[in-house]
Amino acid sequence: MPTIAEQLAELSRGAAEIMVEAELVQRLESGRRLRIKAGFDPTAPDLHIGHTVLLNKMRQFQVLGHEVVFLIGDFTGMIGDPSGKNATRPPLTREEVASNAETYAEQVFKILDPELTRVEFNSRWMGKMDAAGLIGLASRHTVARMLERDDFRKRYQGGQAIAVHEFLYPLVQGYDSVALEADVELGGTDQTFNLLVGRQLQQAYGQAPQVVLTVPLLEGLDGVNKMSKSLGNYVGINEPPDEIFGKLMSISDALMWRYFELLSFRPVAEIEQLRGAVEAGANPRDIKFELAVELVDRFHGAGAGVRAREAFVARFTQGQMPEDMPEMRLKAEGGGLGIAHLLKRAGLVTSTSEALRMLSQGAVRIDGERCEDRDRQVAAGSCHVYQVGKRRFARVTIER
Amino acid sequence: MPTIAEQLAELSRGAAEIMVEAELVQRLESGRRLRIKAGFDPTAPDLHIGHTVLLNKMRQFQVLGHEVVFLIGDFTGMIGDPSGKNATRPPLTREEVASNAETYAEQVFKILDPELTRVEFNSRWMGKMDAAGLIGLASRHTVARMLERDDFRKRYQGGQAIAVHEFLYPLVQGYDSVALEADVELGGTDQTFNLLVGRQLQQAYGQAPQVVLTVPLLEGLDGVNKMSKSLGNYVGINEPPDEIFGKLMSISDALMWRYFELLSFRPVAEIEQLRGAVEAGANPRDIKFELAVELVDRFHGAGAGVRAREAFVARFTQGQMPEDMPEMRLKAEGGGLGIAHLLKRAGLVTSTSEALRMLSQGAVRIDGERCEDRDRQVAAGSCHVYQVGKRRFARVTIER
Repeated sequence: MPTIAEQLAELSRGAAEIMVEAELVQRLESGRRLRIKAGFDPTAPDLHIGHTVLLNKMRQFQVLGHEVVFLIGDFTGMIGDPSGKNATRPPLTREEVASNAETYAEQVFKILDPELTRVEFNSRWMGKMDAAGLIGLASRHTVARMLERDDFRKRYQGGQAIAVHEFLYPLVQGYDSVALEADVELGGTDQTFNLLVGRQLQQAYGQAPQVVLTVPLLEGLDGVNKMSKSLGNYVGINEPPDEIFGKLMSISDALMWRYFELLSFRPVAEIEQLRGAVEAGANPRDIKFELAVELVDRFHGAGAGVRAREAFVARFTQGQMPEDMPEMRLKAEGGGLGIAHLLKRAGLVTSTSEALRMLSQGAVRIDGERCEDRDRQVAAGSCHVYQVGKRRFARVTIER
Repeated sequence: MPTIAEQLAELSRGAAEIMVEAELVQRLESGRRLRIKAGFDPTAPDLHIGHTVLLNKMRQFQVLGHEVVFLIGDFTGMIGDPSGKNATRPPLTREEVASNAETYAEQVFKILDPELTRVEFNSRWMGKMDAAGLIGLASRHTVARMLERDDFRKRYQGGQAIAVHEFLYPLVQGYDSVALEADVELGGTDQTFNLLVGRQLQQAYGQAPQVVLTVPLLEGLDGVNKMSKSLGNYVGINEPPDEIFGKLMSISDALMWRYFELLSFRPVAEIEQLRGAVEAGANPRDIKFELAVELVDRFHGAGAGVRAREAFVARFTQGQMPEDMPEMRLKAEGGGLGIAHLLKRAGLVTSTSEALRMLSQGAVRIDGERCEDRDRQVAAGSCHVYQVGKRRFARVTIER
């Protein structure tokens, strides 16, 4: 068993903030099996590797023997948008919640230990709460403090409507910590306010306040925006091995180290060694291979990573993908860019007609895969390696 | 049956505001029996004549054949102060609510027709509402509009805490109108915001919005502050006949007309005749007698008023209470004033020792009643006629 200091070092790795570290140390020292809470949206069970930063942190607690509660916030999901203004957010049925939970389980147990994970639904206690109970809960927080939450403050000052029930959701989320008697709550930095409401409510209900540990929002493949489905700069954990591998190989060297810190299970010391090797002249591409192999293995089983690497190498004719290649960012036009236009703007061809000729000759590759479709649209937010002929390469990010 | 114009004139009498008058006319024209809602606090069933301004307005609707709902807001009362910060506001039990309702009934049926009054408790529907239902309700209103309510705005700007549940109470009160399908809601001007929330919620729930009719807050005996128990400037409707009579006789002539408008059941035309009589030289005291007799009759039965008048006249030696007497306002010192000090400051005696002598000789009267208690404290907010000997009189209001 690692020492408390070693445990703290591992748990702090990549963490944005720990409130309050001394309290975390105290709980670790108690030797108790701690209850670690993390809440998940019941409507979005399709995870990308950005979500796994949090799952990895949950896993670290599991490795130390603690109980992790994977909490699905189905209560508010089953209410939907009660004002009825947002037709795209209809209330979830019980069946949809159950089916989404299944989909979650398939994905998260690639990282979490099922034996040490308790899947919970907050409808279990919130569904029983009556209006009077909710009023009691609402009495524990002030309007002024709610309006300190960044998004609320901006909307209020900007004259954008905040419906009164939006003030109740952080309280429901905070009350979940009371109901669970959570020792620690984990979440993204965007959840900091809500996690602190949990701390405060636990105190109001006579419990010791949970430790709040936040993790950063992972940057997407473009290295700039946070990873998100809608920006297209993501790696889905259910994507095929070759897709995951290719996308990870497209990231910049700087972003690679960030991903090592937040996504790799390698000890910090080992990552430092890799960094030293690159500084001593090793090819960063080979280090990136290590990261991509580890992640493909994680999501597709041991061995899948090496097979994806071999396929990747084979796609780039005899591995001739150059060590250094121009990197550039192009502005999207109407949601993406046509391939011919993209190749011209990237300087890989001198004219659109050359681009079209190269495409029809089969001389154009995207991440090593031949592209002959002259009408191919490349989505905004994506990042790929484009190759024309044997020698011309560029890594191009499409910005929206 | 009076014409619509006559009905409107009577219903508008003394009203502060009608929103929207055209809608009220429309409903009156429909010939339907309308449902008139007025809400009452379940914790304060001890009424003073200030409360009867609203009851009188309810009665006017009854006289026109409409159904009046006397709504006791017991749901929030049974929650108490959920933050537990206010120990003086413990939650009411069901038994207390029932007993308070009895006390209310004893009082309000001195004015309202029991046959046309439906006593309701909002716990009947709010007690069944679950947390999800309350969230749905809260989604119908915005934070910004809540913060427009005068007291909320002032507290927010002044850095005084507003607990989140305080935003829910106006919504509960508004939802009562939905549950009752109210046609008209009556209330004091201090309730205007909440009454309008009812209008808005009814629209959100697909109902025609209720007409809101507000009545002013009655000035207390001092003619300045609103009538209230805590200010001591009130006439309780359960007070003995002589008390009510004496207190009403202590008011200024200007306030008398205000009380006629808001408290008397006499037609407006008749009140105008009385005013004309005074202008033509009649003694205002005799007109004040009319008002006092009417109100004592109302609360103690026909005949009680005349008996109280006779007792009042007898108390003032052979009716020698002067028609004109000095009126003055004295500042309270520590919640009231000692009688000897008061007499001196009022100029009725030249020194405190004279005051004490007159007291011990039985030469001091308060509202015609002998006072021999040298330690008598007169409460702040009160207004009485003080008499020393046969000739010296003053009407003194103690200001806090």
